[in-house]
Amino acid sequence: MTDPRQEAVGQGELEFSPDERDAVYKAIFNRRDVRGQFLPDPVPDEVLARLLQAAHHAPSVGFMQPWSFILVRDASVKQRVHAAFQTANEEAARMFEGSRADTYRRLKLQGILEAPLGICVTCDRDRAGPVVLGRTHIPTMDLYSTVCAVENLWLAARAEGLGVGWVSIFHESQLREALGIPERVVPVAYLCVGRVSHFLRKPELETAGWRPRLELSSLVSFDGWERRSDDDPLLPLLRRE
Amino acid sequence: MTDPRQEAVGQGELEFSPDERDAVYKAIFNRRDVRGQFLPDPVPDEVLARLLQAAHHAPSVGFMQPWSFILVRDASVKQRVHAAFQTANEEAARMFEGSRADTYRRLKLQGILEAPLGICVTCDRDRAGPVVLGRTHIPTMDLYSTVCAVENLWLAARAEGLGVGWVSIFHESQLREALGIPERVVPVAYLCVGRVSHFLRKPELETAGWRPRLELSSLVSFDGWERRSDDDPLLPLLRRE
Repeated sequence: MTDPRQEAVGQGELEFSPDERDAVYKAIFNRRDVRGQFLPDPVPDEVLARLLQAAHHAPSVGFMQPWSFILVRDASVKQRVHAAFQTANEEAARMFEGSRADTYRRLKLQGILEAPLGICVTCDRDRAGPVVLGRTHIPTMDLYSTVCAVENLWLAARAEGLGVGWVSIFHESQLREALGIPERVVPVAYLCVGRVSHFLRKPELETAGWRPRLELSSLVSFDGWERRSDDDPLLPLLRRE
Repeated sequence: MTDPRQEAVGQGELEFSPDERDAVYKAIFNRRDVRGQFLPDPVPDEVLARLLQAAHHAPSVGFMQPWSFILVRDASVKQRVHAAFQTANEEAARMFEGSRADTYRRLKLQGILEAPLGICVTCDRDRAGPVVLGRTHIPTMDLYSTVCAVENLWLAARAEGLGVGWVSIFHESQLREALGIPERVVPVAYLCVGRVSHFLRKPELETAGWRPRLELSSLVSFDGWERRSDDDPLLPLLRRE
């Protein structure tokens, strides 16, 4: 058996310089959900391959790697996905009331047809048999692993200068049908991917006044749910932007 | 109303240099699920604040920001969480058969007591009322948002030289009880966080022969589920590491 130490990387060898660390935060803080700024330029294969490798190196429960990636480039397939969105979005608009409903209808919520590339990220719940290490008690862990792949891809895309938008307003069954996805497989995310004219400084829903960014310090507690400790020295550090 | 263009960042202004892009990939490819290499040094508040800001800037459905963060530093609380893990882990070990069961028992799956800090990342499903933009048709979207926060925190931690391990072998009810989490709130992840003696080159389950890394090109299809196109120029790019 391999000595796991031979597989080790010393703290020194793979340390991050301050500049490298800042680059990771730059991607995290400037990632946006893009709906309206897509340009038609195709995503180069070299770049797409890096995005998919980034997704494939997400953490996964029991090293299950339950994800697959359906790349949508065909205009007629995009049309089917868009039709599924429209059906659900009409229903969604009727769920809001008064001025909220008006605002909802004014928001652009997807770029399915404009983005040069769609990526449906799916979760095959049977990929590693019925008993999966780490999924024995929380059955959604494989879905969560797939979401980690989405977030990796999204951050990598931001570092490549590409925008990503996650469209979630679908009946799952209709998205499945549009892409021929079998029943055991969950379409976790439909992503619109492409170059953008510009990135927004803030989330669109924040700018539109839909919801404010919450104060981080109000979301942190100590050693138990909502156990606050108002003089904890961490709190002032959370309040500055 | 604000002109959204005023909130725009030109492609030029926030482009990533090749070095910055590589730093993002460095974090993605060298992130590990850490179980056994924790050092006792406390996580400095300055660093912890950055990790929490990174999590708080994850994408969230309808800008819901459904996450909260319970920081676990108290040894007796860690003991309660560890006891919940042990109960579930004994059950889990009995679900595997033959040599697989032996291997399972030999694997170290968590560092709850050794890591200086635990972070329970939760999802408050009621945070933005019953009707949430983007959650109207896929009700798990708020859980997925919370997972994005976990992955952001994890990558930021890697860039800070800190290890993170996600422990998922719990009865959700027992983890709730250990931390006093109310019924409407889902404990999505319990993370062990701290400095480590070293990072492993590969996932531990891969090194231990539990499961191999899957070939990425086998997970990609075109314009529909398992629609392969063997001569697509993307495929050779996926095969190289």
